[in-house]
Amino acid sequence: MTQHQEIERKFLLKWLPKDWKHHRSMRIIQGYFPVAGKELEIRLRHKGARYFLTIKGGQGRRRSEEEIPVSAAQFRALWPFTGRAHVAKRRYEIACRGHTLEIDVYEGPLHGLKTAEVEFDSERESHSFQPPSWLGREITGVRRYANQQLARRGLPRRRPQK
Amino acid sequence: MTQHQEIERKFLLKWLPKDWKHHRSMRIIQGYFPVAGKELEIRLRHKGARYFLTIKGGQGRRRSEEEIPVSAAQFRALWPFTGRAHVAKRRYEIACRGHTLEIDVYEGPLHGLKTAEVEFDSERESHSFQPPSWLGREITGVRRYANQQLARRGLPRRRPQK
Repeated sequence: MTQHQEIERKFLLKWLPKDWKHHRSMRIIQGYFPVAGKELEIRLRHKGARYFLTIKGGQGRRRSEEEIPVSAAQFRALWPFTGRAHVAKRRYEIACRGHTLEIDVYEGPLHGLKTAEVEFDSERESHSFQPPSWLGREITGVRRYANQQLARRGLPRRRPQK
Repeated sequence: MTQHQEIERKFLLKWLPKDWKHHRSMRIIQGYFPVAGKELEIRLRHKGARYFLTIKGGQGRRRSEEEIPVSAAQFRALWPFTGRAHVAKRRYEIACRGHTLEIDVYEGPLHGLKTAEVEFDSERESHSFQPPSWLGREITGVRRYANQQLARRGLPRRRPQK
């Protein structure tokens, strides 16, 4: 089963950590099928050398995610149906304070956007995480930074910095 | 590759052919994800002992169909996201005049509906097919008899018989 309950926090980056380019990374390209309703997301993803169809649905604790492997040929046949709702990024995995941070450096129309995601085993662990200095504003649960929103609406307008 | 161009004709049944119950049959249950746009269909299907996610998109000659096997667990996890857009039927395969007719006998809210589909290798073959006497009105391409429409809108109202 690939279904699991995710506890994660997400941040914007102030700057990239030292030596970031030397960490393990993978290119990710994803497209979103046009679905009706906010509770459903159907995503086609090319990650490294593999291809997936991912369906996310529900809300909160009842949210579930199913990742289904597809062939390269299936990916190519289905890609046109995602229209222009695309995201391209390179994901770096960086160890930090006992956790693995997934740093996404966006490309194309989203160039300039850099985010970090950290996954936790428990709510308690999630609350006790102290972000390093290079992490900026927390955007956990902020809808306009969700990848589907970024794919459809592009880069959110920057809030004025204080 | 499971992608192919379909040439098929579809009919309502006047009555079931003799000995229909003795032909090979399989129960089919399918649910439809809520998608935006008429050109896309994302279907979850339980056919016999197997499970599939099928994505159909495009129109006419550019229509493509990808059938992706999923596990029973994935089927169960995804089923709730198809809401109430469901179809249940039993499909009988009946040989007839050199072709295999797929006879669908619908269940539940669609009880009473019986359709037949025949697939052809060419347009020419499709035109020369002579339907047997137990086939009634041709419904090839009639949208309200498409399974997704039946799932969402139920049984079409019967046109008055002449």
